[in-house]
Amino acid sequence: MMNKLKRGFASDNNAGIHPEVLKAIQNANIGHCIAYGDDIYTQNAIAKIKEHFGKNIDVYFMFNGTGSNVLGLKMLTESYNSIICAETAHINVDECGAPEKFTGCKLLSVPTKNGKLTIEKIKYHMHDFGFEHHSQPKVISIAQVTELGTVYTSNEIKEITEYAHENEIFVHMDGARICNAAASLDSSLREITMDVGIDVLSFGLTKNGAMNAEAVIFFNKKLSENFKYYRKQGMQLASKMRFMAVQFEALFTNNLWKKIAEHANKMAKVLAERIAEYPQIQITQEVEANGVFAIVPLEIIPKLQREFFFYMWDETNSEVRWMTSFDTTEEDIDIFIEQLKSLLK
Amino acid sequence: MMNKLKRGFASDNNAGIHPEVLKAIQNANIGHCIAYGDDIYTQNAIAKIKEHFGKNIDVYFMFNGTGSNVLGLKMLTESYNSIICAETAHINVDECGAPEKFTGCKLLSVPTKNGKLTIEKIKYHMHDFGFEHHSQPKVISIAQVTELGTVYTSNEIKEITEYAHENEIFVHMDGARICNAAASLDSSLREITMDVGIDVLSFGLTKNGAMNAEAVIFFNKKLSENFKYYRKQGMQLASKMRFMAVQFEALFTNNLWKKIAEHANKMAKVLAERIAEYPQIQITQEVEANGVFAIVPLEIIPKLQREFFFYMWDETNSEVRWMTSFDTTEEDIDIFIEQLKSLLK
Amino acid sequence: MMNKLKRGFASDNNAGIHPEVLKAIQNANIGHCIAYGDDIYTQNAIAKIKEHFGKNIDVYFMFNGTGSNVLGLKMLTESYNSIICAETAHINVDECGAPEKFTGCKLLSVPTKNGKLTIEKIKYHMHDFGFEHHSQPKVISIAQVTELGTVYTSNEIKEITEYAHENEIFVHMDGARICNAAASLDSSLREITMDVGIDVLSFGLTKNGAMNAEAVIFFNKKLSENFKYYRKQGMQLASKMRFMAVQFEALFTNNLWKKIAEHANKMAKVLAERIAEYPQIQITQEVEANGVFAIVPLEIIPKLQREFFFYMWDETNSEVRWMTSFDTTEEDIDIFIEQLKSLLK
Amino acid sequence: MMNKLKRGFASDNNAGIHPEVLKAIQNANIGHCIAYGDDIYTQNAIAKIKEHFGKNIDVYFMFNGTGSNVLGLKMLTESYNSIICAETAHINVDECGAPEKFTGCKLLSVPTKNGKLTIEKIKYHMHDFGFEHHSQPKVISIAQVTELGTVYTSNEIKEITEYAHENEIFVHMDGARICNAAASLDSSLREITMDVGIDVLSFGLTKNGAMNAEAVIFFNKKLSENFKYYRKQGMQLASKMRFMAVQFEALFTNNLWKKIAEHANKMAKVLAERIAEYPQIQITQEVEANGVFAIVPLEIIPKLQREFFFYMWDETNSEVRWMTSFDTTEEDIDIFIEQLKSLLK
Repeated sequence: MMNKLKRGFASDNNAGIHPEVLKAIQNANIGHCIAYGDDIYTQNAIAKIKEHFGKNIDVYFMFNGTGSNVLGLKMLTESYNSIICAETAHINVDECGAPEKFTGCKLLSVPTKNGKLTIEKIKYHMHDFGFEHHSQPKVISIAQVTELGTVYTSNEIKEITEYAHENEIFVHMDGARICNAAASLDSSLREITMDVGIDVLSFGLTKNGAMNAEAVIFFNKKLSENFKYYRKQGMQLASKMRFMAVQFEALFTNNLWKKIAEHANKMAKVLAERIAEYPQIQITQEVEANGVFAIVPLEIIPKLQREFFFYMWDETNSEVRWMTSFDTTEEDIDIFIEQLKSLLK
Repeated sequence: MMNKLKRGFASDNNAGIHPEVLKAIQNANIGHCIAYGDDIYTQNAIAKIKEHFGKNIDVYFMFNGTGSNVLGLKMLTESYNSIICAETAHINVDECGAPEKFTGCKLLSVPTKNGKLTIEKIKYHMHDFGFEHHSQPKVISIAQVTELGTVYTSNEIKEITEYAHENEIFVHMDGARICNAAASLDSSLREITMDVGIDVLSFGLTKNGAMNAEAVIFFNKKLSENFKYYRKQGMQLASKMRFMAVQFEALFTNNLWKKIAEHANKMAKVLAERIAEYPQIQITQEVEANGVFAIVPLEIIPKLQREFFFYMWDETNSEVRWMTSFDTTEEDIDIFIEQLKSLLK
Repeated sequence: MMNKLKRGFASDNNAGIHPEVLKAIQNANIGHCIAYGDDIYTQNAIAKIKEHFGKNIDVYFMFNGTGSNVLGLKMLTESYNSIICAETAHINVDECGAPEKFTGCKLLSVPTKNGKLTIEKIKYHMHDFGFEHHSQPKVISIAQVTELGTVYTSNEIKEITEYAHENEIFVHMDGARICNAAASLDSSLREITMDVGIDVLSFGLTKNGAMNAEAVIFFNKKLSENFKYYRKQGMQLASKMRFMAVQFEALFTNNLWKKIAEHANKMAKVLAERIAEYPQIQITQEVEANGVFAIVPLEIIPKLQREFFFYMWDETNSEVRWMTSFDTTEEDIDIFIEQLKSLLK
Repeated sequence: MMNKLKRGFASDNNAGIHPEVLKAIQNANIGHCIAYGDDIYTQNAIAKIKEHFGKNIDVYFMFNGTGSNVLGLKMLTESYNSIICAETAHINVDECGAPEKFTGCKLLSVPTKNGKLTIEKIKYHMHDFGFEHHSQPKVISIAQVTELGTVYTSNEIKEITEYAHENEIFVHMDGARICNAAASLDSSLREITMDVGIDVLSFGLTKNGAMNAEAVIFFNKKLSENFKYYRKQGMQLASKMRFMAVQFEALFTNNLWKKIAEHANKMAKVLAERIAEYPQIQITQEVEANGVFAIVPLEIIPKLQREFFFYMWDETNSEVRWMTSFDTTEEDIDIFIEQLKSLLK
C-alpha cells in the first residue's frame, strides 16, 4: 500500500491538508467555545468571506459537496420542481440520488461535449409550465469547473443566468473547484458567481487544500431564511464548527485559495504540454483548470496506473482523467512523463 | 468573546481536539491516498476497532451523531415503521426531524424520569401489529449515556434487547457518550453493546476528544449490506476520510478513549460532590457519567453563566446542566465552586 | 358472509352510497368531458361549495381522507416543522405514518380525555422556537368530530385558532365527520371552520354518503397557490373527476349533507338512550355526533359482534365503539338492543 | 360547454363509465360491509382476477395509475436505486415527480422513436454497479401500450425481462392500457405480463371503462409482502373498496375488458384508415392500439379541435394525438372525417 501514499494524478481529493490550513486547526485548538457555529472562529471566518463577496450574502459551513449541493438546491425548489443540469453533472451521476431523495425533485439532464450547458440545451427541458402533470423546471445547475475540466467564462454564465431569471428560474453553481475556475480566469470568486447572477453557490474548498470543509453561499438572503433548519435536518450541522471555520479563514488570508489553485492549474498545463509531445495520446478537452482528459493506448493504462494511480474516465474510448492538486510538483510530472515515455516505446 | 474560549461546563461538544488525536491528523497529512475510505488509514482504523469488538461487525465513519443515528435507523426500518424512544431522546428533540425526513418513520416517545426506557414504558406503544393503518413498531432506540446523564447497566440493556428480539424489534443505541458509559460501568465498549444484544450503535467520539468524527457500527452484517449507498445518499460520505479514520485509531490506541472518558466522569463526580455541600442546590439525577443536573436558585444563574457558560435545562423548575469533558481540570471546578459560593451568600 | 351485508354499527365507512349521490353519478355518465377536473361538473360542484363558504376559498377534490390531511398539511409546513395534535388523532395513529413520509414533519401528540385539544395541552409543545436543533411547531391539527365522538364548539375552535395565529401557527381541521359536527351544533359548515379561523379543512364526505370522494378546502388562497402540483405528485389527482364532483353537488343540493348527518346523529342519540337503560353498560364519552363509546361486559362482546359487527376501542377496559350512519334505522337499533338485552340477562 | 360532453378523440380518460360497470356499482350498493377491502366484493373480485392469472399473484386495488406506478416501483427499489424508462414514459413526464418524491429514486430515461425500450437502449444506463457514488439501476419500466400507441410483442417483452433478470434487475409494466395491448395482440393479459417475465404490473382499467379503479399486481409474492402498509402510507387505500372491486369483477366477467378494448382498437384502425385517404396528413406511429398519432396542417388544428377536442402532441412538428375509447362509434368517426375533409379543402 505504501505507494498509494505517493502523490498521484487520480484526484485533487486524494491530496491532504494544506500546511497553512492544518496550522489554523492547531491554533484553534485551545479552550472551549460554543458548539454548532455560535463561536468567534465561525464569526471571523464568515466576516472574512464577506470581505470578498460583500455583506449581502449568507454563508453556512457544510461537511461535503453533496451536502452543499443538495441543501442548496432544496432552498430553491419545491418537491414538484425539476432541476436542469449537464448529463455529466456531479449531482446527476455522482451523488447516488441524494438530490432526488432529499428534495423530491426530478433531475433533467442534457448531453454536452464539454460539460457546459448552453441556453439552447437548456431550452430542451423548458416546457409544460403550469401543467400540473409535469415537474416544473425551477433551477439550472452548472458546475464551475465542469466535470470535464472546462471553465465557463463570465459571459457564458451571465447568458445563462439572464435567460434563467427572465424565466423565473434560479441558477445554482456547483463550485467544487470554483477556486480553480477563478484562478483560470484570473477573476475574483465574486466576479464569476454573484456578479454574474448566480443565486446559490456550493463553495468547495476540500479539493483545494481543506479537510472536509465546504460552504453554501446564498447571494440572495431571502433564499436562505430557513436554511439553518434544513442544514440541521439534512445532517450537515457540525458541532465543533470552529475547526471548519478556521480552514476558510486560512484560505482567505492573503488569497491563499488563489495561489494554490493557480499552482494546481499550472501543473495541469505543464502536464498537458508534456503529454502533447506524444502523438499516441490525444487530449480531449481544453485544459482550463486542474484536469487533463486524454485518450491513451489501452494497453499501457494498467502499467501507468501502477506507479501513479488515476481513473479511467470512459472505458468505451480508453479516455482517462488526470488531476493535479495544490501539492503537485514538477518532479511528479517529470517522473510521470518518464514512465509514460518508456511505456509508449 | 475572549472568555468564551475558557473551559466551561456547557457541553463536552465545546471542548477542542484531544492532543493525541490532533497529532494523528498531522501524522496522516502526507502524500496522496484514495479518497472516500479506500485507503490504508481507514483500513487500519477499522482493524483497530475490530480488535475491540471482534470481526463480525461493519464499521462506517460518519460526520456527526445525527447522521449516525438517522442512517443507522434507516437500515432497520421501512418508512411505514415506528421507532420507540424516550421523550428526551436526542433523535426526538434535538435533530430537527432528521429521522422523520430521511426514514419517513414515526417516532413514538414515552416520558421518563431519568431518560431510561423500561419494558413497561416500551409496551405502551407495542400494539396494532399487522394493522395496516398503524405505523408498525420496529426499533427501540436507547441512549447510552442518556440525555439526563444516567447510564443503563448491562442487565437493563439486556432486558430491553431480549424483549425487543422476542418481538422482532431491533435495538439501536445512540452512543454519543458511549465511552463515558463504558468508563462509568468499567466495561469494555463491547460488553455494553454487542454482548448485550444491541443491533446498531451510533458510536460517538466527538464528545470524547475527536473532531467531527463518528461511526455507525452494525453488529449484524446483514443489516448493513447496502449501507454504503445510504451513507452516500445521506450526504455523510467524507472524501478525505483518512483524517476521520486516524482519530479513531488514536483513541483506540492504549485505550485512550477510556482514560479520557474516565477523567471526564471523575470531574463530574468531583463537581457533584463539591456542589452537594450547598443545600440551596439540589442535584436531580444520578451523576453516573459526565453530566450534573441540578436545580439552582434562579437569581444566581445569569451571574454564574457569565464566567462559566452553561445551559438551562428546564426553565420551569430552574434546572441546569453542567457537563465535564476530557480537558476539565480540578482547578476549573475550584474556580467555579468559588464563584458559586460567593453568589450563594 | 351474508350477514356482513346487513347494516351494523361498526363504522360509517361501512355504509354504501346515498341514493341521491349514486343517482348523480349515473346522471353524469354521458358523453366525454375533459379529465383531471377541467370539466363542467367539477366547475359546478366547486361553485356550489362556494355558495356555502363564499368566494375566497380554494377547493380540490381528493380520493380519501388521508390524502386530504397529508397534502393539506404539506401546504402549511416545511419538512423541519412539527404538527401538534391529540394523541388519538387519525393523522397520528391511523395513517401509517403518511404525514411523516410525505411532509417530513414530526408529529407532536398530547393525551386527552375526550379527543379535544386545549390551549393548555398545546402549550406543552410550544417551545424552542428559533432553535435549529428542534422541529419548529407550525400547525395545530384538530379533528371535528373528534375520534372520540365529541364535538368542539365554535368558541373552543376560536380560542385555539386565535392562540395559534398569535403565535404564527396554522390550524388544520380533519373534518372526516365535519357534517356530523355541523349537524350537532346546528351550524353551517362555514360557521365552524372558516368563520372561526380554520386555515385548511380536510372536508370528508365519504363517511356521510359519498363514495371515495373528499376535498381539501383552503380558506386562504395564498396557502394553496401550488397545491395542484402537490395533489398530482401526491397521487391524489383523479382522471374521471366528474364522478367525484357530482357527489359533492348532490350532497350540497337542498342541504342533503346536513339532513343525513342529522339523521345519523339522531340515531346515535337514540342508541345511547336505549343503552343507558342497562346499568351494566357505561357510556364513556358525550354522544355529540354519530358515535357511542361504552364499556361493555367483556363476555358479551363477541356474541354481540356476531350479529352486528363493531370494533373494540380499548381492550384494556373493554370499551367499544358504535357508529351510526345515514342509513341506520330505528329498527336496526331495536334489533340490536333486543340482542343486547338477551345477552345481558 | 355543452359540446364538451360530446364524445371526442382527446383521451380514453374523457369517456365515462361502461354501463356494465356502473350497474355493478349499483348492485353493490346494499347494506354495510367492512371498509378498506376486508369484504366479500373485494374477495370475489380478486378471485376473478386470479382465475385469469393463476393463484400465485397478489392484487391490490388503487385509486389511479400514478399511485399504481409509484407504489409498485417502491416495492422493487431502495431509495439509492435508479429506474430506467423511455423518455416519453408517463412516470418520467406525466407524474409531476411522484416517483422521485415517494421512492427517492433517480429516473434514467432514453429517447426512443416509438416509445419502446430495447436492450441496446437500456444498456446505456447499465454501468457503475457496486460504485456507491452512483444510483444503482434496479428496475426497467416499460409501458404497454406505450405512450405513442405502439405495442410490445410478447417476444420483445421477454427479451427485456430475460436481460433484466440476468442482471438482477426487475421489470415493471405500466399497463394503463394493458387491455388494449392484449386485444391488439389477441393475447390473454397473462400471456403478455406474467408469462413473459414481468415482475409487477400497474393494471389500468380507468381508460377501459372503469371509474377511478386501478390495481397493482405482483407476480412474485415476495415483492408484495409489506405492500399493504405502503398502500396506506401512500394514501391509496380506499375505505369503500367494494365499489372499486366490483368494477374489476364486471370487466372480468365474460371478458368484457377484452371486448371493449377490441372495439376501441378497431375504432382507431378505422380512424387511421379514413385519415390515410388524405395525403396532407401523415400518420407517424404504427396504429397498434387505440391511439392515432399524425402530423396535421397547423392551420386546421384549432378549427378541428372546436368540434372534437383533442391534444397537440408535439408543437414543433404539428403532431396531434387522437384516442378512441370503449364508446367511440363509427358515426363519431364519420362526422370527424367529414369535418376534416371540409377543413382540408
